[in-house]
Amino acid sequence: MSNLKKIDKNTSENKSVDTKTSPLNRRNFFKKSMAYSVSAVAAASVLVPTKALANDPNIMKHVPWGTKLGDPVNKYEYGIPSPYEHNNVRRASPLLSSGDYYGSITLAPLHESMGIISPNGLFFTRSHGGVAHVDPNKYRLMIHGLVEKPIVLTYEQLKRYPSETRTHFIECPANGAPEWRAPQYNNLQFARGMMSAASWTGVRLSVLLKDIGVKPSAKWCLAEGSDNSEMGRTIPVEKLMDDAMIVWGQNGEALRPEQGYPVRLLLPGWEGNLQVKWLKRLEFSDKPWHAKEETSKYTMLQPGGKAIRYFWPMEVNSVITSPCPEKPWTDLKKGDMVEISGIAWSGLGTIKHVDISINGGKDWVEAKLKGLVLPKSWTRFSFMYKFDGNKTIVLSSRATDDVGRTQPTIDEEVDKVGVESIYHRNSILSWEVKENGEVNNVHLRKKV
Amino acid sequence: MSNLKKIDKNTSENKSVDTKTSPLNRRNFFKKSMAYSVSAVAAASVLVPTKALANDPNIMKHVPWGTKLGDPVNKYEYGIPSPYEHNNVRRASPLLSSGDYYGSITLAPLHESMGIISPNGLFFTRSHGGVAHVDPNKYRLMIHGLVEKPIVLTYEQLKRYPSETRTHFIECPANGAPEWRAPQYNNLQFARGMMSAASWTGVRLSVLLKDIGVKPSAKWCLAEGSDNSEMGRTIPVEKLMDDAMIVWGQNGEALRPEQGYPVRLLLPGWEGNLQVKWLKRLEFSDKPWHAKEETSKYTMLQPGGKAIRYFWPMEVNSVITSPCPEKPWTDLKKGDMVEISGIAWSGLGTIKHVDISINGGKDWVEAKLKGLVLPKSWTRFSFMYKFDGNKTIVLSSRATDDVGRTQPTIDEEVDKVGVESIYHRNSILSWEVKENGEVNNVHLRKKV
Repeated sequence: MSNLKKIDKNTSENKSVDTKTSPLNRRNFFKKSMAYSVSAVAAASVLVPTKALANDPNIMKHVPWGTKLGDPVNKYEYGIPSPYEHNNVRRASPLLSSGDYYGSITLAPLHESMGIISPNGLFFTRSHGGVAHVDPNKYRLMIHGLVEKPIVLTYEQLKRYPSETRTHFIECPANGAPEWRAPQYNNLQFARGMMSAASWTGVRLSVLLKDIGVKPSAKWCLAEGSDNSEMGRTIPVEKLMDDAMIVWGQNGEALRPEQGYPVRLLLPGWEGNLQVKWLKRLEFSDKPWHAKEETSKYTMLQPGGKAIRYFWPMEVNSVITSPCPEKPWTDLKKGDMVEISGIAWSGLGTIKHVDISINGGKDWVEAKLKGLVLPKSWTRFSFMYKFDGNKTIVLSSRATDDVGRTQPTIDEEVDKVGVESIYHRNSILSWEVKENGEVNNVHLRKKV
Repeated sequence: MSNLKKIDKNTSENKSVDTKTSPLNRRNFFKKSMAYSVSAVAAASVLVPTKALANDPNIMKHVPWGTKLGDPVNKYEYGIPSPYEHNNVRRASPLLSSGDYYGSITLAPLHESMGIISPNGLFFTRSHGGVAHVDPNKYRLMIHGLVEKPIVLTYEQLKRYPSETRTHFIECPANGAPEWRAPQYNNLQFARGMMSAASWTGVRLSVLLKDIGVKPSAKWCLAEGSDNSEMGRTIPVEKLMDDAMIVWGQNGEALRPEQGYPVRLLLPGWEGNLQVKWLKRLEFSDKPWHAKEETSKYTMLQPGGKAIRYFWPMEVNSVITSPCPEKPWTDLKKGDMVEISGIAWSGLGTIKHVDISINGGKDWVEAKLKGLVLPKSWTRFSFMYKFDGNKTIVLSSRATDDVGRTQPTIDEEVDKVGVESIYHRNSILSWEVKENGEVNNVHLRKKV
C-alpha cells in the first residue's frame, strides 16, 4: 500500500492558467462589478513597438556585459544578490530601538517580496538582547518538568528525529505599530514589515514529546531562549501537541542566527515573540509562568483599563504590496493595465478570499488568489486594473479566512479594542493613489 | 463567483502526521516486508538521560552567548549564515573547469539540503563565459521573428505582466557526469550536485506570447543570452506555450546574478542549459538553429555512432542525501533508529513513489513521501531504519513518476545508451554503508 500523500497535478501552483478566471478574460466576472474599469485585454498596454526603441543604445550596440568575461563561477562559495539590488534590504529605525539596536527590530522590504516565502537574508528580525551566536557543538536542549523522561539533547541528537518541512509566516504581534502609534513613515516596509515567511524544517513537537511522555497534569510549558535576554514565554500544551515544531532549517539551509540558530520553536500562526529563538529549554508545569514578556509586554490594554493576556494567534490580515508608497504608479500612462497585488495571511487557518476596493471600502470586488494557498501561510492575491489617472482613488484589501474571520475597518477595531494597545492590529490598510500615481498611507493622516 | 483556487487544509505539507503511515507506527506496513528491521518506536533511541550529561559544562555553566549582548539587529541589512555553517557551500573543481572557472560549474551541497527548495546562495551555477553582471536599467528583451508584433521590453515593462510563482528544480543534463566519466570524488555533492530547486516568479510565456501573436508557421524559437558566450538554444514552440516562464524572481527576491539576473527563461523539467540566463532575445522560426550547444555539446552519442539531439526533459531520478559519504552513520550505535531520506524528481511529471533497497537492489520497499509533492519539483522521501552495524549494506533509492517511468539500473542504462554520453544519466545510485557507518559510492568501484 502506498504511503503517498499526493497533490494532484492541478494544484493551484501548477495548474495552467484558467482563461475563464484569469485576468486576461474576466469579462463575465466584471460584468457583475461595473464599478471597476477592468479590461479583458490585461497587460496589452505594456507592448512597446520595436521602432520606439530603434535608437536605444541598449539594443543597437553591444552591452558591456556581453563583450567581456563575467565573474568566475567560483567567486562566491555562498552567493549574494546583484549589486543593483542594494535597495532591497531590511531596515531598522531609531524610533523602534532602544537606541543601540540590541533590543530592536529590522523590518522586511515587503514591497519587493514575491511568492509566499522570504529570502533568509531579508527575513525581519527582532531581538531583546542582540543576535546570539550559538556554537552548535555546545548547544543543548533540555526538556523537563512534568514529563516522564526528562532529557538533554545535543544538536545532532535532535536532528536525528524524522523531520518535516512546512511553510509558515512569522509575524510580530506589534506589526503595524509604527503606523498606529508613531505614524512617521509613509511606506509599506514600516507599516507591515514585522513579518516574513519561510519553509521551516524540523521535528514535530508531538513526535518528540511522545518519546518523553508529558504527564497529564502538565497544562503549560515555558519555552526559554539561551540568549542573554533569556526570552521566556508560556505556551499551552495543546498547541505544542498540535502543530508546533522545533526547527533547525529555514528555506533549505540551517536557521539563520537572527532566527535562533541553531534551533527555535515554531508555533504556526501564533505571535512571533512566543516562537522562542536560540531555544534552551522547555519546562512543563500545571500553571503558566507570568513571565515579563507576557505581563508587562505583549499584553493588550483595553478601554476599561484591563489588559488581555495570552492572546496568541495572529488574526486574518492583508496588505497590498503593489502599488504602495515605495512602488507607486508614477510611471503609468492613462489607460495602462496594471496588477494590484499583495499578501493575505491568517494565523487561524487558510485564506478563503480577498476583496479589493478602490473607493475607500464602499464597494468591494473579489481578487484572484494565486499560487499555493496553504494554512497559516502567506497567500498572494491579484487583481487587474486599468489606471485612469483622472482622480485620487483609495485602494484597500480585506481578507477572510476559513474560520470565518474578516478584517475589520479601523473604526470597528477602535470601537472594539480601543487605542491603547499596539498589539494584534489587523484592520484594513488603505493606500491613497493620486492622479499622478503617487501612493500614500491613508491611516497616517486619519485622526483616530 | 469565487476565483479561489484553494488547496484543502489537508495538503500533504500541512496535514497532521498520519499515525497509520507515519514512521512511528508502521507495524502493519512492515509485516509485509520483514527483510527490514524497522521498529515502531522510531527515534526512541535518541533519548539521552539527563544524568549522562550531568557534568556537561554546556548544561551546568552559563554559555558565552547567554552572558553578553549579541550583535545589534541592524548589523546586516542583508543577512548571512552563521559562521558555524562555513562548510555548507557550493564547490567547484579543476576537473570540471576550463582551468580558469569562467566556463565552469559549482555544485550544490545536497548533503545539507532540506525541504524542496535551495537557498539562493547555494544554488548550483553553470556558466559558459563567467557570471554576467547586467544593469537592469539597460536590460532589454527582444521578441521577434515569426510573430505578429515584434517588441522590445524593458525590465520594468516586463515585470508589469501578471506574475506567477512556481516551484521547480533545475538540473544540468550532465548531472552525474563526474561520477560517470571521471569518478574521483567519493561524495554526494559531486555525484548529483548539478541541480538545485527554487520558487520562481515571473510571467507565463503563453500570456506574453498571446499579446505578441506567434505566427502559425513558427515551430521553433531561439533563446539567446546577453552574456559574452551568447548562449543560444532552440526550443520547440509547444513548450513555450505550455508551462514555460520568463522569470525575474527566485525564492522571494530578484534572480541571483549566477541565475541570469535580471531575467532568465524557465522551462520546467527540461535541461538546465536550455533555460537561458541573462535572456536577450527570443526569435521565432519554422526551423531549429543547430546552435553549437545543441550540436557539438548537449547531445548524446549512442553505441552505433549516432548522436541523439533535442533530448530535453530530465527523466525520473532520485538520490539518498542521508546517509551519504559526507553524512555517514559513524556516530550511530547498534540498534539506533535512523532516518534514510533523500530527494526524488522528474522533469516529466510528479513523483509517484520511491522505493528503498538495503541489499543492492534485490529487494525493495516503499518509502514515505513527505511534504509537498509538486510536478517537476523536488520531492522528499523518508524511511525509518534500525542500524544494526553487523554487516556492510548497499543502500539504493529508485523513483517512479506519474508518467510511468522508473529509474533503470546502471547495467540497464548502459545496455540502452552505451557508455559514451555523459548526459541524461538517471540510473540508480547506491551507497555502500559499512559496519562502522562509513558511506561510499558503489559506482566508483564498479567496472562498467
